[in-house]
Amino acid sequence: MNTVGLVAFALVGSSKAIREEFDLFGIVIVGLAMAFAGGATRDLLVARVPLALQSPIEICLGLVGVGLAIGLNVVLSSPETHPVTLVSDAIGLAAFATAGAIVATEVGVSAFGVVAIATINAVGGGAFADILLDRAPFILFEDFYASCAVLGGSAYWVVGTLGATAGTAAAACAVVTVGTRLAAVTYGWNLPTAQNLELQRK
Amino acid sequence: MNTVGLVAFALVGSSKAIREEFDLFGIVIVGLAMAFAGGATRDLLVARVPLALQSPIEICLGLVGVGLAIGLNVVLSSPETHPVTLVSDAIGLAAFATAGAIVATEVGVSAFGVVAIATINAVGGGAFADILLDRAPFILFEDFYASCAVLGGSAYWVVGTLGATAGTAAAACAVVTVGTRLAAVTYGWNLPTAQNLELQRK
Amino acid sequence: MNTVGLVAFALVGSSKAIREEFDLFGIVIVGLAMAFAGGATRDLLVARVPLALQSPIEICLGLVGVGLAIGLNVVLSSPETHPVTLVSDAIGLAAFATAGAIVATEVGVSAFGVVAIATINAVGGGAFADILLDRAPFILFEDFYASCAVLGGSAYWVVGTLGATAGTAAAACAVVTVGTRLAAVTYGWNLPTAQNLELQRK
Repeated sequence: MNTVGLVAFALVGSSKAIREEFDLFGIVIVGLAMAFAGGATRDLLVARVPLALQSPIEICLGLVGVGLAIGLNVVLSSPETHPVTLVSDAIGLAAFATAGAIVATEVGVSAFGVVAIATINAVGGGAFADILLDRAPFILFEDFYASCAVLGGSAYWVVGTLGATAGTAAAACAVVTVGTRLAAVTYGWNLPTAQNLELQRK
Repeated sequence: MNTVGLVAFALVGSSKAIREEFDLFGIVIVGLAMAFAGGATRDLLVARVPLALQSPIEICLGLVGVGLAIGLNVVLSSPETHPVTLVSDAIGLAAFATAGAIVATEVGVSAFGVVAIATINAVGGGAFADILLDRAPFILFEDFYASCAVLGGSAYWVVGTLGATAGTAAAACAVVTVGTRLAAVTYGWNLPTAQNLELQRK
Repeated sequence: MNTVGLVAFALVGSSKAIREEFDLFGIVIVGLAMAFAGGATRDLLVARVPLALQSPIEICLGLVGVGLAIGLNVVLSSPETHPVTLVSDAIGLAAFATAGAIVATEVGVSAFGVVAIATINAVGGGAFADILLDRAPFILFEDFYASCAVLGGSAYWVVGTLGATAGTAAAACAVVTVGTRLAAVTYGWNLPTAQNLELQRK
């Protein structure tokens, strides 16, 4: 799952950079940033040297995603909205949220910390990529995306607290994240804004 | 003071996100980012696991601020410029600058390090919230805001170096920060730009 | 070399902030961010307290660069494109890339980690300054700048792996970085975008 996620995240990040007419260096950096910045932020928060700097295999997977983005850009007009990409992205979201929840539990943070680190691991890369592209991170104002990681991280904590093994908690986190994400894509879910809430009240 | 600061900072951050029509997730994240990113950056710089991830009570205070922003948004047009908010924000600025100066002194950095960490703790959250909102951080070009934290951090270092106890230094930092900030709000202080300096010379 | 780099980077950062009409606090912060954010990020990645917070001399050098930017702004219309600044900036790029490669080797990361930390140390400050100025980091879409640090970091790793001493590897890194950077400025090198690549194929 982690493999699929790294390739899919790098592909989405690079595709965004290509659309902004960044040069090759920019395309590689935004792709790798999207794939690795979430995990690196997680490692910073728990005071570790980021794994991505130690594992050459993971970087190669990221570069495969960057290469795919450049290759597919010739064939497809927007490879990052292709159904295969959307499903891979959902799998990556779940894999990263689960990895975050596991690391957070190991270092012994609060329930909020577990959910926060799971979410940061899952969506931090995308948010950082958007900042590099000089945009507000899209997770903050549209789509039902980061919320899936929040639900997944919460599921991890609830299942773990109920006494289940770490493996069961991880499975629950992955299933909840990927399930809610695919449902959100299929049915076009969105969270309301404060303006929507007021309108509904009137 | 820390309590007032957390609520006020989360309230200001969330109010900005509401104005940008971010969705509920975005409103929560920008509010919490404004309240906690400064302290988290401080903890990263001194190589600690951020306290905010370990203390559920602090997170609840941040969420109170987020809730207030959503609630007040219906009643007031811009709750973050209300006098009560401005005073609470000044108290928060002082509380966060003092907390930063204390932590920096504990890890034994230089005088510059003490002032830098006090300032980052106090204004880092607001700067990060502005980046999430795709703006240049407002502290860099208007208002007399971060400068209050710089003065407070300097006061901490000067008083501490003169041989006073940590408690006296902390009090000096808090008084200087909140005092200069309230004066700045009252009298509309601004730092000059390089362009202003040239004009004055002519 | 490090001295020249700190002054040059702070000068370039502050000049950008002056052009955006930031106030004095903003000019100081963007200049110091450009000079120190790359090294601070390196230290965060390897879980150290940033050196810049412990060494008052380095900060003074940064402030000299800030002062130069304010002073030169009156005499020259854009001091950051003056040949002396461009050469100093290239020297700084090389000094910072070399420092990054040395620290990365000490903590024992992979080959990719060495190149990544060298590059982040060299160009992270400039990228962070651009984010503070609410721009996409210029290294991502124009000029042949970060690529020089990538080549320098790679040279460090190749020479080191071939069995040379750390001093020789550092010299190779510095020579490659400053050489390719000066060549890039002289001949106006640019990396292609994905759009260029497609056009060339047609």
